[in-house]
Amino acid sequence: VSRIVRHLTPPYYAVIFTSERKLGNDGYGQMAARMVELAATQPGFLGVESVRDAEGAGITVSYWDSTEAIAAWKRNSEHVEAQRRGRNEWYAAFHLRVCRVEREYGSPRDPENGG
Amino acid sequence: VSRIVRHLTPPYYAVIFTSERKLGNDGYGQMAARMVELAATQPGFLGVESVRDAEGAGITVSYWDSTEAIAAWKRNSEHVEAQRRGRNEWYAAFHLRVCRVEREYGSPRDPENGG
Repeated sequence: VSRIVRHLTPPYYAVIFTSERKLGNDGYGQMAARMVELAATQPGFLGVESVRDAEGAGITVSYWDSTEAIAAWKRNSEHVEAQRRGRNEWYAAFHLRVCRVEREYGSPRDPENGG
Repeated sequence: VSRIVRHLTPPYYAVIFTSERKLGNDGYGQMAARMVELAATQPGFLGVESVRDAEGAGITVSYWDSTEAIAAWKRNSEHVEAQRRGRNEWYAAFHLRVCRVEREYGSPRDPENGG
């Protein structure tokens, strides 16, 4: 999950999801892995990057080709249930931002970036 | 650094910086902390969120009120030197995306989000 998403062609959309986990696991890890797997099958999905540290702070950024694709993913029934459990059980706090990616560049030595 | 940046009013801008660290430290931690401190003094800075896991994968998102503020920060001389060392010494790979934040919401129980 933590691999860098290589070059995409703007404009496209990013969802930045920042969260602080509560202590304990109680199914969180399984659900998080399942959501990544499920997101990757959705129309308009372009990629995802996710990092969580030992203190429970996490940032997940998913990339989509349109705001319609983001809205459809938000309504996915299995995802709706994960969102409900996230609010009620797993997250002490979270914040979500929908953004339009306007430009980008990567490390010059990365052959996939032409370096 | 890993605190969630609370509600801001779109539109504004986000810089998503995803990276994979090389092994070793060699001044990285000090420089990273200094860059957060320095960024916070720049015109147009709105906040920063940063997470790095034990395997060295990191996502840092900084928020700015304009693309001009982002461009000025990129040119800051101390930051230019940090970018150079990052490319040459610290990062195995990185990718940077500049985005326009269009909408956002946070955890309903967070009083700062009106919940």
